[in-house]
Amino acid sequence: MQEKQARGNPASLTQRLLNCLLWCSGDMLDLDKHFEDKPVVLQMLLWCLRTVAMVILANNPLSGALILAALYWASPWQSLLGTLGVLASTFTAVVIGQDMGEVSRGQHGFNGMLVALLMGIFSSAGDYYWWLLLPVCLGSATCVFVSNGLSSLLGRLDLPVSVFPFNTIIVLYLLCTRPDNPYFPHHVVLAPGVLHPNDTQLSAAAVLCGIPLGVGQIFACHVLGPSLLILGAVLLYSPLLALHALLGSAAGTLAGLSMAVRHECLYSGLSGFNGALSCMAVGGLFFTFNWRTHIFAVAGAFVSSYVDIALNNLLGTIGLPACSWAATLTTTLMLLMTSQSLAAYRIPIGQVMAPERNLYCRNQWEAGNTSERESTDV
Amino acid sequence: MQEKQARGNPASLTQRLLNCLLWCSGDMLDLDKHFEDKPVVLQMLLWCLRTVAMVILANNPLSGALILAALYWASPWQSLLGTLGVLASTFTAVVIGQDMGEVSRGQHGFNGMLVALLMGIFSSAGDYYWWLLLPVCLGSATCVFVSNGLSSLLGRLDLPVSVFPFNTIIVLYLLCTRPDNPYFPHHVVLAPGVLHPNDTQLSAAAVLCGIPLGVGQIFACHVLGPSLLILGAVLLYSPLLALHALLGSAAGTLAGLSMAVRHECLYSGLSGFNGALSCMAVGGLFFTFNWRTHIFAVAGAFVSSYVDIALNNLLGTIGLPACSWAATLTTTLMLLMTSQSLAAYRIPIGQVMAPERNLYCRNQWEAGNTSERESTDV
Amino acid sequence: MQEKQARGNPASLTQRLLNCLLWCSGDMLDLDKHFEDKPVVLQMLLWCLRTVAMVILANNPLSGALILAALYWASPWQSLLGTLGVLASTFTAVVIGQDMGEVSRGQHGFNGMLVALLMGIFSSAGDYYWWLLLPVCLGSATCVFVSNGLSSLLGRLDLPVSVFPFNTIIVLYLLCTRPDNPYFPHHVVLAPGVLHPNDTQLSAAAVLCGIPLGVGQIFACHVLGPSLLILGAVLLYSPLLALHALLGSAAGTLAGLSMAVRHECLYSGLSGFNGALSCMAVGGLFFTFNWRTHIFAVAGAFVSSYVDIALNNLLGTIGLPACSWAATLTTTLMLLMTSQSLAAYRIPIGQVMAPERNLYCRNQWEAGNTSERESTDV
Repeated sequence: MQEKQARGNPASLTQRLLNCLLWCSGDMLDLDKHFEDKPVVLQMLLWCLRTVAMVILANNPLSGALILAALYWASPWQSLLGTLGVLASTFTAVVIGQDMGEVSRGQHGFNGMLVALLMGIFSSAGDYYWWLLLPVCLGSATCVFVSNGLSSLLGRLDLPVSVFPFNTIIVLYLLCTRPDNPYFPHHVVLAPGVLHPNDTQLSAAAVLCGIPLGVGQIFACHVLGPSLLILGAVLLYSPLLALHALLGSAAGTLAGLSMAVRHECLYSGLSGFNGALSCMAVGGLFFTFNWRTHIFAVAGAFVSSYVDIALNNLLGTIGLPACSWAATLTTTLMLLMTSQSLAAYRIPIGQVMAPERNLYCRNQWEAGNTSERESTDV
Repeated sequence: MQEKQARGNPASLTQRLLNCLLWCSGDMLDLDKHFEDKPVVLQMLLWCLRTVAMVILANNPLSGALILAALYWASPWQSLLGTLGVLASTFTAVVIGQDMGEVSRGQHGFNGMLVALLMGIFSSAGDYYWWLLLPVCLGSATCVFVSNGLSSLLGRLDLPVSVFPFNTIIVLYLLCTRPDNPYFPHHVVLAPGVLHPNDTQLSAAAVLCGIPLGVGQIFACHVLGPSLLILGAVLLYSPLLALHALLGSAAGTLAGLSMAVRHECLYSGLSGFNGALSCMAVGGLFFTFNWRTHIFAVAGAFVSSYVDIALNNLLGTIGLPACSWAATLTTTLMLLMTSQSLAAYRIPIGQVMAPERNLYCRNQWEAGNTSERESTDV
Repeated sequence: MQEKQARGNPASLTQRLLNCLLWCSGDMLDLDKHFEDKPVVLQMLLWCLRTVAMVILANNPLSGALILAALYWASPWQSLLGTLGVLASTFTAVVIGQDMGEVSRGQHGFNGMLVALLMGIFSSAGDYYWWLLLPVCLGSATCVFVSNGLSSLLGRLDLPVSVFPFNTIIVLYLLCTRPDNPYFPHHVVLAPGVLHPNDTQLSAAAVLCGIPLGVGQIFACHVLGPSLLILGAVLLYSPLLALHALLGSAAGTLAGLSMAVRHECLYSGLSGFNGALSCMAVGGLFFTFNWRTHIFAVAGAFVSSYVDIALNNLLGTIGLPACSWAATLTTTLMLLMTSQSLAAYRIPIGQVMAPERNLYCRNQWEAGNTSERESTDV
């Protein structure tokens, strides 16, 4: 309402830009209404863009488009695989009759996208090895089944399925195709605790670069430019979420330093991405933002990072990566917490929106006006 | 009713044989009534035969007798161990006061039988090593406790305990008695992904033989003749189940080929048995048979087989077999699925019967006549 | 009432001592009322002593004091770490707003104490390495969060959180800080199944000594004197519990002998402590004591010990200890059992008291007088 009036008035360019930005940020739920009478292909495009953004916990099609652009910038082949993964899993979800509301919010494709991206990253057959499309499609489709099965377990506890399906499928894929597989060979993963004897001096600048790279690593992207663009996409959705992403990645880097992990892990952002994911999920998304949950989110980022190092050391002994198991398990445990000072700020799964929106709803609700939350919770 | 009339009339030999076959197939629930006033030993025999058949998801004492004969044909020592396992666990179940209805349906002994069979197969002390009877009895008895504990967890989700106890106990047994144990030594298991350098050409005939062997491998039987007899026992219980067993085993063999597993895995049927189990459970037993669930069952067989290869590669690094973990986990996940197109065909655990019977009940029920299902569900 | 009269009368010294002992044994719940108007520091002391005793399933501050003395006797540094662990986790529990009733019963600190003790035992940096206080405090505090998260899962099944948090945190800590960590190095753990070629003759006396040492190993104490003092502390709380501790430890030693584990495992009591824990939990604490549950407890001790050997062999391949995973998992499974002959004796989590008290309440309740149980269950 406010934005429409603003556009009607002869406002300055700055004002117009700001309004446009405001309209673009957050969940952009009114966009769905605009697309209701559009062709199915356009609607599908909207769903897929939301799905891409959902990987990094944002629910905004413009963020999704920015992220796709960043992935294309980093590696066109990876971007192609990711798109295929989203399409395969969204298509499967429609075919097996999943709830269309959930599909349109992008909740059935982000696991498939991650599976596709990681299969590409770990493949040692080089780019444009077209046979890889076969496991990418099958793996992404299987994610939907796993997701559906797990949701009936986790849903009883009001927990999100999160990236459990992705983590399960990618670990099984890598186990299934051992490094020396004749059709789908893949790289062996080194445990982060292994120190090379000829280890050079730690570079502070490279470690600092690792913090934004930690945000990019959520999409398995290890180039600085695209990582910053991904961070920008999160900023567009919610500044609070972007702040927590950076904080979490920094916490993860600190955790990595304290455990003396391999320098490459710090430089590439691999130390930070689990912390970033945990911090984003707890600080704002699943808990209303305030100083308590903020401290809790940072503490969670540290725990998640240490768990990640531990799991990497465990799985590294058989040449497997820990993916985002640490963040997923830590966040799930945190969502289960029932202690007075935290449970009061927990947001039920079905009502999770952008952190700013969550905060606004909470304030409205505390002011005795519960109509706002109810009206958005359809 | 129909059969009784047929027997009363002077029908031809073919007609009589067909009637006899019809009476022998399916769940043979009227046999229980005939045995009600018989001595306990005879009743116990009936329960044990049902238990043996239950390993391969059939609930038919004649199938059980055929399977026992097949096992004796393959190896008398194995057959003896299996029988002991069934007796030990059934006896334990009666002693600790389990529901007698479940005991008579053979639901408390099949895990014990599998534990006994696998302990025999993995033992490297040779046949007729009588000390082995000690862990066989204790392991089979422990299965009943594990089964009881798990059932109160899984029962809440309307899931069967399945072969979780067997898989747990056998892995713990093999871990406990390392290969070099002075009392109970066992063979080391090789991961299926390990290719020998001097690998010979793949033999198509041997791979085809591996498909029925995959059905036999459910009982750890790797001889063709007895495997075919086991398949015949399943055919007697339900042709639909036998078809799915073969289809699943074939799917598993294809999955093994696509991942270039060791040739011995393909030849011995080890690649196929997880697929067979999954396909049987989904296609007919826990879901009413129709084209949707049929496709679902075949897809499940593939997923199960790939998971089996992955788990074998994982557990093979410490010299352990993956047993039927893959089929058990995959089937459990499938039973949890709630998507529209599948959940509608799910059969509650307490009402599972032979696939043909399930199908008949469903048709009756859809025709508005629900009395049939209710009358059999006591 | 009885004791007060006794003290008023001119009773003999023996009578007075006996009364005093009677008053000191059991849960000493009336002590809490005496402390209600005392300063917070004194109350906190009482909670911490209860917490120390709770590690070995006793709920008695005097037992806690005895155990602390035993730990100080064995190693002042270990005792210091343990105390710090209790304080850190109790403080965290108070800060995040856990239920004060549970805190005062010592239910939020015993995991933290175990984490602190084990971090000290596994550290290869020697005693009085002050940097270790950092992971000890953080690890103990994290236990409270993990405990809170798990309790909302396990509480639904009326299961105790038990030492799951301790086991999780210590395994993650050891995985995180690999043996060659520059800041927190730790010892590599050998699998118990590994036999040294120059194995000497087994000493019967040393094996017998291992039985009381198994009780001490619950606190990671491997000296005979302090172990006997710890056993005495349990005896003070409940003779029945102390008996089961010894029985369980003996069962574990027998299991270890039957599997030919390394002699050091038998001598140091490492083979016995899982059995002791299981036997104590089942025989008296979570089930009312009678001959059925007694047999069940001894059987559980054996199962728990074999599972411990299996898990040690599994985790030993990557240099990790199995801690008390075996006892925790086995006991949890046993608490889930629903078979007629056991479920009837199960005591709900909120009503667990000293075994003798449980037995007394049960008898009262069976005699038609339910007021006793209700009055103590506040």
